Amino acid sequence: MSAAEGRPIRVALLGCGTVGGEVARLLTEQAGELAARAGAPVELAGIAVRRPDKHPELPPELLTADAEKLVTSDDVDVVVELVGGIEPVRGWLLAALEAGKSVVTANKALLAEHSADLFEAADAAGADLYFEAAVAGAIPLLRPLRESLAGDRITRVMGIVNGTTNYILSAMDSTGAGYAETLDEASRLGYAEADPTADVDGYDAASKAAILASLAFHTRVTASDVHREGIADVTAADLAAARMLGRTVKLLAICERVTDDDGVESVSARVHPVMIPRSHQLAGVGGAFNAVYVEADAAGELMFYGQGAGGAPTASAVLGDLVAVARNRVVGGRGPRESAHAALPVRPMGQTPTRYHVSLSVADRAGVLAQVAQAFAAHGVSIAAVRQSDVGDRASLVVVTHQAPDAALQSTVDEIGRLDVVHEVVSVMRVEGEDQ
Amino acid sequence: MSAAEGRPIRVALLGCGTVGGEVARLLTEQAGELAARAGAPVELAGIAVRRPDKHPELPPELLTADAEKLVTSDDVDVVVELVGGIEPVRGWLLAALEAGKSVVTANKALLAEHSADLFEAADAAGADLYFEAAVAGAIPLLRPLRESLAGDRITRVMGIVNGTTNYILSAMDSTGAGYAETLDEASRLGYAEADPTADVDGYDAASKAAILASLAFHTRVTASDVHREGIADVTAADLAAARMLGRTVKLLAICERVTDDDGVESVSARVHPVMIPRSHQLAGVGGAFNAVYVEADAAGELMFYGQGAGGAPTASAVLGDLVAVARNRVVGGRGPRESAHAALPVRPMGQTPTRYHVSLSVADRAGVLAQVAQAFAAHGVSIAAVRQSDVGDRASLVVVTHQAPDAALQSTVDEIGRLDVVHEVVSVMRVEGEDQ
Repeated sequence: MSAAEGRPIRVALLGCGTVGGEVARLLTEQAGELAARAGAPVELAGIAVRRPDKHPELPPELLTADAEKLVTSDDVDVVVELVGGIEPVRGWLLAALEAGKSVVTANKALLAEHSADLFEAADAAGADLYFEAAVAGAIPLLRPLRESLAGDRITRVMGIVNGTTNYILSAMDSTGAGYAETLDEASRLGYAEADPTADVDGYDAASKAAILASLAFHTRVTASDVHREGIADVTAADLAAARMLGRTVKLLAICERVTDDDGVESVSARVHPVMIPRSHQLAGVGGAFNAVYVEADAAGELMFYGQGAGGAPTASAVLGDLVAVARNRVVGGRGPRESAHAALPVRPMGQTPTRYHVSLSVADRAGVLAQVAQAFAAHGVSIAAVRQSDVGDRASLVVVTHQAPDAALQSTVDEIGRLDVVHEVVSVMRVEGEDQ
Repeated sequence: MSAAEGRPIRVALLGCGTVGGEVARLLTEQAGELAARAGAPVELAGIAVRRPDKHPELPPELLTADAEKLVTSDDVDVVVELVGGIEPVRGWLLAALEAGKSVVTANKALLAEHSADLFEAADAAGADLYFEAAVAGAIPLLRPLRESLAGDRITRVMGIVNGTTNYILSAMDSTGAGYAETLDEASRLGYAEADPTADVDGYDAASKAAILASLAFHTRVTASDVHREGIADVTAADLAAARMLGRTVKLLAICERVTDDDGVESVSARVHPVMIPRSHQLAGVGGAFNAVYVEADAAGELMFYGQGAGGAPTASAVLGDLVAVARNRVVGGRGPRESAHAALPVRPMGQTPTRYHVSLSVADRAGVLAQVAQAFAAHGVSIAAVRQSDVGDRASLVVVTHQAPDAALQSTVDEIGRLDVVHEVVSVMRVEGEDQ
């Protein structure tokens, strides 16, 4: 036990919005409990906010507008960052780490772009950098990936990591309404931000996928490495097509280890809408909940489920990290460092194996199926299932493929769209999970 | 960074059955990966087995029958115990901890009885005691409870933690067969041990409940504090009754914080069969899988799912702990200590609030419902739902109650069984989860 035991651990809080307010509240209300678990009192040394005069609810002696000065104060052991965004936060956190402070952050955008700098600074100073709250809110996910599975070989991480898009897709599925209408409703109910771009265009999920892939595969993946498609192009017809097949549509983040025919390993990280069977556990994850599957060689299939956002759930994850960091200070150690020793290349989306669902409106005459099937065969895409049904003088043709490189599937769909016998490509979507 | 970085971490393995064999294999096959993650090579210093001559598959120079000597050898940093049972293992692990070795164990029975001694020895020596593999196999559950949720207040842990009983109940549900017949089939298929007592009578689940309650509530709960009922009395009629209500039956471990009317806090830990709605996520957990719900004030509802047993999944959890312990040695710190600072009393089962389902065969005449309802009322038990249906000259009466102390519910059932108008108490079972 270190001589430091008993000395209070002093915390600088950057940002005091929904999550920060919860953290400040819990630090005060749970003080005795937190001290018992950390091995020393955990105290607020200061709170940096843009406008101190706008926070009458907080003790004035703790408030400051000068985050830059607070983070390197001699009186601070740990910096908790809940401001978000890249600059000026990046500079503050680097300064804090260089000054030997440990850092707890929920900033997924920053970590998805600049984790290398931050981890280097943490390693150089022997300080901790924890960020459980950056992915899947309250769900303990990063610590299991980093620590519990450290002796295993993770092959796949797949999940619902954005609550807004999951709410919208769940609502489209249950009401049959279109995307624009459902987004409006979600905004009205407070499930979508005034500017929903980061959520609906998949930027938020892509940042999380980058963080998950980096931790799971011990390599470096940034947000720009992640193939990203949002939900703005998902139509009521897509959901209707999914329903016909006993499936539904979810926006998934999928991170995989891929080994090519020559035995060369790479990683693939992508975010896009996916049709999954209704019997799949992810299909039942509704509203603002998150759920993530992890597959590993020895552990097999694991699933983690819980609230992905919100003040209290995110604060829970932040406090878990804060207790860990405080305890490391008390006992004189530090937590696991980041490891990017695997240094695997990132596989381009076009070369990533996927499966497609294609729903077509075609002419109702002989030879149509043969022409469509020929287009798939020409691109080396093997067909898993076909369903044809007549609707008046047109026919509906649904094709589900086996796995093929994504680029081959895209080219096939482009070619099919140009066939005379195809009136309309009603729905194209990637699929995951076996039908039962 | 400690000067020890780079020096190999030497491991003594006690026991080399299914799990131990996997651990030994992975330690060799994944040596490079494990070294990268731990910050130093992780090497086998010795393997203690009862009969070294029975293990031609292992390097003979590592084998010994003298576990007692191996665990305190100067050449050993960490002891991995996979023998199981209380004695002589307890003595070995105490000796190892007293000699400053860290310990990784999957021994739930030992932890559920003697964790206090073991944690004291670990604390006195500044050594680590990790045991993720003791509960729910590969599922990262204990580390999230101990660390990720360290800043939150856990109110409830509920789950399926025994694969054998889950397999049997799932099979009874899908085939309609009785308990004895299904157990025979499970034994034949290798899902149940030759002596299935520890599983079917709930001892295994009770040990796990004790460990979960201790960690979740920062208090000390032993296996003997856990109310325990196995599945041997679950009948085909129970499952049929559950099916009628859109429910199924699972053996659950339930650990709760209970606050009585005077504001006094206590904990309740119990293992018994429970009717849950088929729409509940635990209802869909089939075969040998485990799943555990955790509810916390700030985090809300979390769920963890995965393989609960088996050589490779259990080895994954052991290796995760081993890497953590090795890394703690390399950086010169240690992991979180156990905390039993809350020291909450354990509530007797009779005073624990539960809800009952009671299915009766009653005389088909006026006034029967009134008599039955009067019996519930006399014990202060409020009825949530009643369903009555005629079958010939008898009637079936199903009652689901609101929450009441378990003893009051038991007394009510006893009294109802003695009523003249009741021909038979067909099924009595506790229920969890809201009907939809």
